Amino acid sequence: MLDKRKLSRNKLFVKKFGGTSVGSIERIEVVAEQIAKSAQTGEQQVIVLSAMAGETNRLFALAAQIDPRASARELDMLVSTGEQVTIALMAMALQRRGVRAKSLTGRQVQIHTNSQFGRASIERVDTQYLAALLAEGIVPIVAGFQGIAPNGDVTTLGRGGSDTTAVALAAALQADECQIFTDVPGVFTTDPNIESNARRLEVIGFDVMLEMAKLGAKVLHPDCVEYAQRFKVPLRVLSSFEAGQGTLIQFSDESERTMTSFVQGIAINKALATLTIEGLFTASERYQALLACLARLQIDVEVSTPLKLNEAAPADCVSLMLADAKVDILLQELEALSESLKLGPLIVERQRAKVSLVGKGLQTKNGLLTKMLEVLGNETIHAKLLSTSGSKLSTVIDERDLHKAVRALHHAFELNKV
Amino acid sequence: MLDKRKLSRNKLFVKKFGGTSVGSIERIEVVAEQIAKSAQTGEQQVIVLSAMAGETNRLFALAAQIDPRASARELDMLVSTGEQVTIALMAMALQRRGVRAKSLTGRQVQIHTNSQFGRASIERVDTQYLAALLAEGIVPIVAGFQGIAPNGDVTTLGRGGSDTTAVALAAALQADECQIFTDVPGVFTTDPNIESNARRLEVIGFDVMLEMAKLGAKVLHPDCVEYAQRFKVPLRVLSSFEAGQGTLIQFSDESERTMTSFVQGIAINKALATLTIEGLFTASERYQALLACLARLQIDVEVSTPLKLNEAAPADCVSLMLADAKVDILLQELEALSESLKLGPLIVERQRAKVSLVGKGLQTKNGLLTKMLEVLGNETIHAKLLSTSGSKLSTVIDERDLHKAVRALHHAFELNKV
Repeated sequence: MLDKRKLSRNKLFVKKFGGTSVGSIERIEVVAEQIAKSAQTGEQQVIVLSAMAGETNRLFALAAQIDPRASARELDMLVSTGEQVTIALMAMALQRRGVRAKSLTGRQVQIHTNSQFGRASIERVDTQYLAALLAEGIVPIVAGFQGIAPNGDVTTLGRGGSDTTAVALAAALQADECQIFTDVPGVFTTDPNIESNARRLEVIGFDVMLEMAKLGAKVLHPDCVEYAQRFKVPLRVLSSFEAGQGTLIQFSDESERTMTSFVQGIAINKALATLTIEGLFTASERYQALLACLARLQIDVEVSTPLKLNEAAPADCVSLMLADAKVDILLQELEALSESLKLGPLIVERQRAKVSLVGKGLQTKNGLLTKMLEVLGNETIHAKLLSTSGSKLSTVIDERDLHKAVRALHHAFELNKV
Repeated sequence: MLDKRKLSRNKLFVKKFGGTSVGSIERIEVVAEQIAKSAQTGEQQVIVLSAMAGETNRLFALAAQIDPRASARELDMLVSTGEQVTIALMAMALQRRGVRAKSLTGRQVQIHTNSQFGRASIERVDTQYLAALLAEGIVPIVAGFQGIAPNGDVTTLGRGGSDTTAVALAAALQADECQIFTDVPGVFTTDPNIESNARRLEVIGFDVMLEMAKLGAKVLHPDCVEYAQRFKVPLRVLSSFEAGQGTLIQFSDESERTMTSFVQGIAINKALATLTIEGLFTASERYQALLACLARLQIDVEVSTPLKLNEAAPADCVSLMLADAKVDILLQELEALSESLKLGPLIVERQRAKVSLVGKGLQTKNGLLTKMLEVLGNETIHAKLLSTSGSKLSTVIDERDLHKAVRALHHAFELNKV
């Protein structure tokens, strides 16, 4: 099969700018200046834009005044105007700089989705029109977050959907790179607000990035990362506010070669609570009833293994991690169901936080758990629950100990060093 | 040819609501209530909406911050979002009332225009989709003011374009009536703010309405009236703020039968100036040069005949009526050109107003001019210039005399009586 990436003379980049990057006329001018400079180098660009920061929420609020349960079709018709405003303004700003630019809606690009209004999936992107514009030297400015349903209705891809638009276009056009411009300079080893030695990662693997996204790193939406991985689109996260290389998220094995340590970052989740139920087998009917109750209440939980520090701990017990804000409603419901569920004693612990080591193949890494517990123990931090997956090793601690734990782990795993 | 009007069981109305009629969530709810009530009677409705009052200007202002001479294509992409917001909100408000409604952009309706961005003309409306929705009992909520160019780009019809959208849909669907809902209860014999006896006209002919629209009656755009006349669409102007029959603008000879007087109304234009140039033939080359100069400055003028009250007035002179605001720039330009143009003495009179009698066949009505001058003379108002066309007889007076003149003429031509 031909690889267009290798045939095209000039590199092609799909660049997505989020809401804060185009949040005002001033910001739009700054981004236009940046695009105009790149255009001068002969680089081919397709620009994908979000609505100006706050605009989507403003439109949702208008709708809520009329009907808090407005139809998803009409909400999509409404909120898709936000991106249409931004693309027109950006095209004007570029044209004033002598750049040939053209704004395009999802319909004009032919971004075909299914009919799931409000959370549509992209099914097909026709590249014919985009390719023709690029061949003419025109910079297409595409409305993110939107597409058209089979019957021609306007759809939206749900929150974070502009990133997915960019990845889908990059995949369809076989772009050299999909660049996501945000308000942070890249993916960091941990939250720089907690650990001042946090370091920007030059390169990160898709699996690890996906894990970080799921663990609440706000940089990229997990769906977008999965989409990029599936279509092998090289993805880069960088800042629209300052110059820099950002972080490259690689689909190939190259990411492993450039890794200097298994542990690549420390992800955190705050405002959690844990619920431990004794005398409950996970295979039991009562446990199934509990899960059904959680689903009904739309409470996301993570099932964790209690750290068995001594033999006295009860053998059969289930521990759940959930958002602290959901605890009251869950306890209320469980009380009502206590008769039928016949649950054993409940232990609720609030104001908890989760600290996760993230990196390729962490689950099978010998001695990692021991080292993590040792580091925390040296700081007299009690690790309470444990959960692992292919690329992460998480433990639950008291929220008061969070900053101390992050700094100690960041130092112990030498994350400040390249 | 089949006339669908006579075949359909239920009457079909195309209803257009302007910016002030949908200017807030509260106003949208009021209009939705009105549409819902009509739906209960079994009446078929197609709704055409403008942007919320102020929204189009807000969007134009955003564009002007980036580029005061932004491309018309991008301006259309930008401002067409205004109507898209309103139709989505209206569809929600109707659905909440149990009315099956669906918002549609100009593209979804298939309102085909030429490629004159910012002032596109409608070339064709496909009624297939609209007819299918109506047959299903769904109320289509259509974005006014917009269409699509042959290449699929978004176009707008220029200011007042939502009225034209409504008329075009009514013509294509052979609707029983096109109803334009505004913030006034209909077409009046003159401005009710000046003459409290001003009377709402039940019926008015298209020619007369067109003349009033051209003379600045803000109720309807002249293009919309011409369009309705061409396609023989019965047009009604009425208020969205209060109940009433409004004014029916008729295309047939019926309007003549129901007319009780030749003079149907008094139109006014304020803030004018007159420029009289002596010793200038309208056939001369110097006159052509003057017209070219006016065109270059984009100044609209009306050529008028000076009222020759005595033989002493110069035989060869040209009088022009123009907006007072344009006088300074015109005089500046004429001074620069005085050498080449060799114009004779200029007489400029400012703070002038135009009073026009409007009605069918006024130009050929014997004695009308005499009566008009007599009425004004009795009030010691000096009529200075004269201009006529098929349906109007205009005279220029001092702006200070405007209210007095309007009241005297309204009384003299018995316009307060049906």
